[in-house]
Parts: sequence; C-alpha cells; structure tokens
Amino acid sequence: MTDAPLAPGSTIGILGGGQLGRMLSLAASRLGFDVVILDPEDNSPAGRVSRGQIVAAYDDPVALNVFGRVCDVVTFEFENVPASSMERLAEAGARVAPGPVALAVAQDRVDEKTFLNGVGATTVDFVPVETLNDLTAAIETLGCPALLKTRREGYDGKGQVWIKSPKDAAKAFEAIGGRPAILEARADFVRELSIIAARGRDGATAIYPLGENKHAGGVLRTTVAPAEVDVKTERRARAIARAVLDGLDYVGVIGIELFDLGSGKLLVNEIAPRVHNTGHWTQDGCVCDQFEQHIRAVAGWPLGPTAPHARVEMQNLLGDEVDQWAKLAGKADVRLHLYGKAEARPGRKMAHVNKVRPL
Amino acid sequence: MTDAPLAPGSTIGILGGGQLGRMLSLAASRLGFDVVILDPEDNSPAGRVSRGQIVAAYDDPVALNVFGRVCDVVTFEFENVPASSMERLAEAGARVAPGPVALAVAQDRVDEKTFLNGVGATTVDFVPVETLNDLTAAIETLGCPALLKTRREGYDGKGQVWIKSPKDAAKAFEAIGGRPAILEARADFVRELSIIAARGRDGATAIYPLGENKHAGGVLRTTVAPAEVDVKTERRARAIARAVLDGLDYVGVIGIELFDLGSGKLLVNEIAPRVHNTGHWTQDGCVCDQFEQHIRAVAGWPLGPTAPHARVEMQNLLGDEVDQWAKLAGKADVRLHLYGKAEARPGRKMAHVNKVRPL
Repeated sequence: MTDAPLAPGSTIGILGGGQLGRMLSLAASRLGFDVVILDPEDNSPAGRVSRGQIVAAYDDPVALNVFGRVCDVVTFEFENVPASSMERLAEAGARVAPGPVALAVAQDRVDEKTFLNGVGATTVDFVPVETLNDLTAAIETLGCPALLKTRREGYDGKGQVWIKSPKDAAKAFEAIGGRPAILEARADFVRELSIIAARGRDGATAIYPLGENKHAGGVLRTTVAPAEVDVKTERRARAIARAVLDGLDYVGVIGIELFDLGSGKLLVNEIAPRVHNTGHWTQDGCVCDQFEQHIRAVAGWPLGPTAPHARVEMQNLLGDEVDQWAKLAGKADVRLHLYGKAEARPGRKMAHVNKVRPL
Repeated sequence: MTDAPLAPGSTIGILGGGQLGRMLSLAASRLGFDVVILDPEDNSPAGRVSRGQIVAAYDDPVALNVFGRVCDVVTFEFENVPASSMERLAEAGARVAPGPVALAVAQDRVDEKTFLNGVGATTVDFVPVETLNDLTAAIETLGCPALLKTRREGYDGKGQVWIKSPKDAAKAFEAIGGRPAILEARADFVRELSIIAARGRDGATAIYPLGENKHAGGVLRTTVAPAEVDVKTERRARAIARAVLDGLDYVGVIGIELFDLGSGKLLVNEIAPRVHNTGHWTQDGCVCDQFEQHIRAVAGWPLGPTAPHARVEMQNLLGDEVDQWAKLAGKADVRLHLYGKAEARPGRKMAHVNKVRPL
C-alpha cells in the first residue's frame, strides 16, 4: 500500500450514515473524492449525499468485502464498529483510519482510561467492575456519588447511572444490565471543555482552540468556541491532545472531552475517535473545519489550518426543536446545518446552528 | 402553490450536473434538502453527490415530467435550457427559479443588452446582425475593432470573434456559422469587475462585494475579492445589480460582469442568471456563499449575510493544472475545491483554489 496522498477521484468509505457521515461526505466531495456509505438504514442522511450506499449490517461479511474493494480508504462516523469488521476491510484491500488500536481503546472505558493515564492524560479515579461484589468494593474505594457505566457501548448518556449511596449498588448494576462496567469517581469540575485535534499519516498534528460545552440529560446542548481560557489551560489541553494522538499512533480527527478543575488543572472525561459534536463550531469558525480535516488526515493529505476567524456558539436542535428552522433561517448571524432526517423523534439530533460573532 | 419557504426534506431539482450543480447540491444538503440532478451525462459531478440523477437530454419530455413531479422547486446551473423545458416543468407541478423572463433575456444577447439599457444598466453600443449586409452596416456604425457574437448560446469565449477591419466581415460571419448575431463596440475599460447578487421571492436583495477578474482566451483565470474600488464604483455597481434583479423580477443568484471605465463609470458586459465562476471566492470569504444564497432564494428562504471575513484570490485550475492538487493541498492559506471530473481535457474547468488573506 502506497503512502502517497490519495488522489482526487478516489473513493472514501464511511461506516455509518448519520449526520457525522453526512458532513464528512460533503467535505470529501469538496476535495473531489467519491464517497460510499455502509449503513443498515436505507437512504441514510449520509447515503443521500454520496455516490452510493451499501445497505447492510456493520458486520455483514459479504457487504464488508464489497465495501473494502470499492473503497481506497475506510473511516467511520461512530466507534462501536466490531473489530472483526475492520479486519475484513483490511483483508479486502482498504486502508482503515483511524486504526484498530484507537478503535479498541475507545470501545472499552477501562482500556481507555488506562491508556489515558498511561500517557499522562489524567482522568478521574476509576475501578473496573465485573460483578455486584466488585461494585460494592468499588463504591467503598471511590465513595459516593460515583458514576457506573457499561465498559462498552453507550453514548449520549445511555448505559450509565449515578450511584448516590452504597445501598443503590444492586439497583444500579441491574439498570445497566449487569454487564462488565466501570465505576468512576465524580470530578469536581467548574466546567466542561473539549478539544478537537487531528493527526496526519506523517505524524503532524493540528489542534483547534478549546470549546466550552453544556450538556443536559447526558446530551450536548451548546459549545462556545474559542472558549475563554487562560494560557496555562490552553497549553495543558494541547499537550493532552498531542499525548493522546501520538500514544494511539492516530490518523484522523479526535474529540477529547475535558473536565476543567480550575487553575489550569484538567482531567480527560472521554475520547471519541472521530469527528465530534463539540467540533461542529469549526464549520463556521475556521476555513478548514473538522470534517475536511478528518478527510485530509485519512486521505494522507497535509492537515489544514485551525486558526479561527470567528467566535461561534453551536447549539444542537433535538427532536421537534428542528421545527424552528424557518425562524432561525431569518437570523443573519445564524448558520443552519440540517441533517436530512425524516423523523424528529424526541431527543434525536436533527440539526445544529452556529451563531457567529466577531472574535 | 404556496409561498411558504420550502421545508427541509423537500427536493430541489437542478438542471445540469457540472461543477456549479455540484456546489449547489452540497449547499442544499447542508440545509437539509434532497437534491435530484437532470443531466445527459451519467454519474455527473453533481449527480455523484446528490440523492439521485435522471440521465436524459434537457428537452426530453418524459424525463422532464418525472423531474417536475419529484422536485418541489427546479433551478439550473446553466442558462441554455430550452424555454419549452421550463414550461413542461411548470406543468408537471414544479416551481422554477429563476423564472422564464430571466432565462429568455439571458439566452439572447440582443434581448439582454436591450433589457439592460432599459433599466439604466448601460452596456457597450451594439447592433443586431442577421445577414452579412447587416454586419457590414454594423461595422460602419460601430467602427473597428468590434466583437461579433452569436445571439444565442456560446460561453467562455466560444461563438465569438473579434473584427479588426471591415474586410474581415465575411470571414467572421462564417466563423460564427452565419447565425443571428450581435456586433458589440469595444469597451475602453481599465479592468473587469463583477458583482454577485441575489434576490429572494419577497423581493429582498443581498449583494456581495465586487470582485476583480482576469480572463485569458475568453476563460476566467482569477478573481480577487473584495476588489479595491472607490465608494462611487461600489455604489454604482450595487445600483446596477438592484436594477437588473428588480427588472427581471428575479429569484436566485445572478452574476453580473462589468467593465470598469474608471472614475466610477461602469458598463455591463453580460449577466448570467445563475451562480457564477466569479463568485466562487464567497465560499471561503463569506459565511453564506453564493451557492447557499441561491438555494435560500429559490427555496423561498430569507437571504443570508454577504459581508466578507477575508480577502480571497480565486484561481481556476484548467485541464492538467489540476495535477497540482498535492502541492496546493499543502499550503495553509489555500482552500481547494475539486469538481470530481475524471477527464482533464485541455482548458476544462477541473477545480478552483481560494487563497485566503486577512481583510
């Protein structure tokens, strides 16, 4: 497999046809690539703006073989793709980025936190939990409140439950299905930050300014970026990003969620080995947004600039909030990004808006 | 037909599947629309990034009926669509924007110049030419050099020839196929400018700053925008844009090419009732580019902002100039836009780059 940058006209495959895949596809098209989506849902948001879509399960061996053959490089919009799928793609001749190590680490919360602390990107204290006995012991170690999460899967607040008292242990363990889990100590943070960063095939990195995030019910509501942070915090966040990227020998864009403990002290909450909701502000705040940046990285292109030209407040539109599109379309400082989803189920991410302000 | 803005999830049809259709499609997708392309070339640049493509001639009555039924609004990327096609689309239930008046005026150079002068948007002197005798008389009226153009069709310098001496008349008339023509006096201009403007369904207008253009061999090579112009010139250009838009009861983006005679005096060279190559700079100079602006207008949405946040030098990459993509991708101030065309025929528009500078 050559290490030359992927020529325009080549085909980029994306596992997952949701909004992240859609925005990746649009960015790839701007650079002259063809895009093919693999997603079990026919006419997915990303499939509708791409050269084609293979409608199949993410672990369908026949579909993966075809997908791997038609694509020069394959990337993913979500990290819960089976490792065996990645192996099949590689066998079929596709380069996969980010690579299997990043995927494996991001799929298991214990492995993820172990890796992070190993590269100096400190997290909250945590204890792996396999049984109810483990959980009881872990609560003794970490105290209450503590957060119980499944080791694998779960996003946007799903698969996790707060334990406020030792007597909640059994109920909490049942709530997450009695599956292998992790108990995390509560972070005493003043705010949530995130940093979007990219690493190219040559090891070069490109890091965007920090964003400040607000969640509700486990789901991101707003990001304001560039966040107002002191030099020490900015420098620490960038060091964390570089340590994570290099530690994973990463290729692509990564989203790193941080707890800001104040006075320049940061803990890593979690990493997502893909373009990230807290990076959507870059679409209207930077000339090279996170989606183009990711495509550049996985295609072996040089990374693009990350300097902002505006301050952006990104707001997610969930469920029927998307019905505000007509009102929002009339605001001169608001940039609308709609995902082309037909059904506005409660809490579903339907669109986001970027409110653009001078720096 | 309702006058409410077109809801996301609606289908926008684009006649023409080239790079302008492609960039329109990408912009429409960002706003949550589905896009269908009609183009005789299978797998056209625009078709490859859209929900679907109907592969048929622009005047195929069956294809137009289907196209008109599946699309809520139809627009076009090039103006030489038969008027009868537009009528068929309207009959099939699609709204068409820009409307038939704008299309008819833009398809005939004599009608175009007559219209322009009628709304106070002065052009060079011109004489309609039907026969060689007409041409001889026209040369006497306008003097030499003068430019002979076919009345209809022709773009990027095709279908036109300079007449340097009266004795060239017969040869020139033959060169353009002896077709109905227009003879235009030469403009004594200091530079070529253009202005990209939009008009919504409600009559509101949005006008971008002027660009300064350089052509070679009849083909645009570069646009620099915002152009350095004095207040008088800017004001005059904006007045021309408004007069043209209102005079055509226009809906959509229009490109207006201007001859700058110096000291605030402008002549209109020609108008193009569509997004325009000299407006590509807006992709990296403005938060709402000409492509989104056009989609907003034809969908009945409020128009977007036109203030620039950067100075941009747009450069077309013709034919094998596109092979420079790898070098250009490594320049931090260069934004690449590739059209996904397989064959780099000499002179073919393959891509453009926007060099971005602070304002």
